[in-house]
Amino acid sequence: MIKIYKGNILYTETSEKFTIVKNGYIAVEEGIIEGVYSQPPEKYKNILPEVDTKGLIIPGFNDVHVHAPQWVNAGMGFSLELLPWLEKYTFAVEGNYKDAEFARSSYSLTIEEMKKNGTTRASMFATSHSEGTKILIELLRKSGMGALVGKVNMDRNSIEGLMEDTLTSANETVELIEWMNSTKNNDNVDYIVTPRYVPCTTAELMKKLSEIVNKYNLPVQSHLDENKDEIKWVKELHPECRDFTSVYNDYGLMPKGQTVMAHCVHCSDDELIMLKEREVMIAHCPQSNANLSSGMMPLRKYMDAGLKIGLGSDVGGAHSLNMREHIVETIKTSKLYWTVFPEYKPVSFSEAFYLATKGGGSFFGKVGSFEKGYQFDALVIDDENLINEIPHNLEERLERFVYVGSHENIVKKYVAGKLI
Amino acid sequence: MIKIYKGNILYTETSEKFTIVKNGYIAVEEGIIEGVYSQPPEKYKNILPEVDTKGLIIPGFNDVHVHAPQWVNAGMGFSLELLPWLEKYTFAVEGNYKDAEFARSSYSLTIEEMKKNGTTRASMFATSHSEGTKILIELLRKSGMGALVGKVNMDRNSIEGLMEDTLTSANETVELIEWMNSTKNNDNVDYIVTPRYVPCTTAELMKKLSEIVNKYNLPVQSHLDENKDEIKWVKELHPECRDFTSVYNDYGLMPKGQTVMAHCVHCSDDELIMLKEREVMIAHCPQSNANLSSGMMPLRKYMDAGLKIGLGSDVGGAHSLNMREHIVETIKTSKLYWTVFPEYKPVSFSEAFYLATKGGGSFFGKVGSFEKGYQFDALVIDDENLINEIPHNLEERLERFVYVGSHENIVKKYVAGKLI
Repeated sequence: MIKIYKGNILYTETSEKFTIVKNGYIAVEEGIIEGVYSQPPEKYKNILPEVDTKGLIIPGFNDVHVHAPQWVNAGMGFSLELLPWLEKYTFAVEGNYKDAEFARSSYSLTIEEMKKNGTTRASMFATSHSEGTKILIELLRKSGMGALVGKVNMDRNSIEGLMEDTLTSANETVELIEWMNSTKNNDNVDYIVTPRYVPCTTAELMKKLSEIVNKYNLPVQSHLDENKDEIKWVKELHPECRDFTSVYNDYGLMPKGQTVMAHCVHCSDDELIMLKEREVMIAHCPQSNANLSSGMMPLRKYMDAGLKIGLGSDVGGAHSLNMREHIVETIKTSKLYWTVFPEYKPVSFSEAFYLATKGGGSFFGKVGSFEKGYQFDALVIDDENLINEIPHNLEERLERFVYVGSHENIVKKYVAGKLI
Repeated sequence: MIKIYKGNILYTETSEKFTIVKNGYIAVEEGIIEGVYSQPPEKYKNILPEVDTKGLIIPGFNDVHVHAPQWVNAGMGFSLELLPWLEKYTFAVEGNYKDAEFARSSYSLTIEEMKKNGTTRASMFATSHSEGTKILIELLRKSGMGALVGKVNMDRNSIEGLMEDTLTSANETVELIEWMNSTKNNDNVDYIVTPRYVPCTTAELMKKLSEIVNKYNLPVQSHLDENKDEIKWVKELHPECRDFTSVYNDYGLMPKGQTVMAHCVHCSDDELIMLKEREVMIAHCPQSNANLSSGMMPLRKYMDAGLKIGLGSDVGGAHSLNMREHIVETIKTSKLYWTVFPEYKPVSFSEAFYLATKGGGSFFGKVGSFEKGYQFDALVIDDENLINEIPHNLEERLERFVYVGSHENIVKKYVAGKLI
């Protein structure tokens, strides 16, 4: 059955500019976009639109890197850099997720905050607790959000209560995948293999996870080249590998086109070549990279090199789950980068919007755009309170919503055609 | 009469660290702080506290640079740099303030947004319209906020509807000052002379404004060294002056200890010496400096040089009137600066908090701290929804409120002892 959504339609088929249809129509069949029209085609003339708005209709936001357990403790300890911060704040809060009640109430807050702000899909780290991860998966299924979720694997350099035995870590991962497969019920929540990062996973565990990735044909998420001390540590831990990227690649944890790596602030040119060859999605996390003093990722350089890039909130390294804020951070940081390195021009509003929608969306399938064949993940924006007597064009209205609007402007959210 | 405020008290007597009194007492007499105590002194034992909270009591925020008319249009056109952005967006919206109704409704939104977010004092630009400025002053008086407000003076390089004749600009300024003096009624709203910036004010107008400053003993606010094209333009306009800072100084618009200059991103060492000698308050505006690609102000360098510094939202170069967001921007930007220029270490949370309270507050008198003799400008924070089972100390709770909290956590606001 065809459904029609009418409004001012904006999306980024390419990053260079918005595709804009004023008072346009989106036709959707079984959750898949059939077409976008400025006039309703004859055959759809008798269909009453599901939505008829004077506001905006835009793709939903995709958060390609977020730690679901850390939201309840976000915004603290940012005087520290990555390694001491992980130990003092991150591991400390994650330990609590062995308690099912804590997990249920805390994960509920995370999901509520993400949905409220228009995140329709996310690639999520849980903790190393299997039961807590199941609770997160069940809550996500109920929420209607799309997500890739993984229990964190870590069998070294962690703390009591989070650290796992190698075999248990692998076995619990398999058990979780099997449970997820057996309980799947027309939802958009799937498993992603989630080694925390090289310093927390032994070579043996990485090998076992690689077997799981191959057996079940699963994607992988982890962290890469975030902080200089971290990079040095990885070098010490793995003298047998060329660099940080090679550790994942050598141990079989970079399935082609199915890997997302967060941060990538300090990649060498050799590493960039490997990331491109493996079609790795880079999760750009500018707010976290500032909070933890990690640095400015050379975004324009990576874009020019044709790398796949999406935006990650990276809560708890960041303090916001709101992807509009991360679009703004992306633009601001690229401008500051340009003032220091003038050979790399800042990214535009459409480029940053693209990263948060179609760029990151590609990790979830045909997601993040309104082209024919894409899943209908969409937000309906009522921006009446943001406009005034001064005439604004549609791109300016979207810019104002992103910079100044609030979650209250998002009046409807769809994932794969379903109202959530 | 003594009033007592009980709660967890945090403030920054010096920037290096918080002064913290757990379950403490602030004694206030006629709006002035008499003392902060961990136990109530014998003589106050029978006084029922005005406030008795398990939350936090902190100084109100001071915004030392904001354009009140631009809030209704903020968040647009940020692909442009300063000069084209001013022309296309800023001047366009300011033209509307010749209409009293537009001015009243738009300024009301600005004040509401500032109060809601805990800004208790601000140094504000209005527009060049006298009537509109009177409306802003009346609204501020009604709001209870503390403010310095000036009608903008500009007699060159502006647009029809904003540009003034030199004599009219000066005369209307005097008339406004006289009106303000004659209608003052125990409020905290005062006049500040407001030449827009050098490219918009002729030498003749600057001289006339200088006479007004001297005659009425008034402070001055303007913009300085924000953008490289702007600096080049000032050089062309004033070959008779050594640099941008000297233009203001040579024309008598830098009254000692009574001047606030916004941005100061690209000051030379000569200019820094002059700013220090004139005891100029630098309004640091990191969000605007990123949005308009102006650059990163060398904050640590200026702090080490002993300059006076406060935080400015600089809406509409910024998109937020929320000073917590500008504290966070200050910290993040200084961290990114450090990753490029490692000789300048990032500012800490207490240092940024100091800038937003006692640092900027000094421009309004004894404001921004809870030391004896300071005006009681304060916020009562109920942060119950931000804390969880994990134990946090008071500084961590404040950090979490600043990074993750919302205006809804601010349950009471005081200016000079009055509940607003």
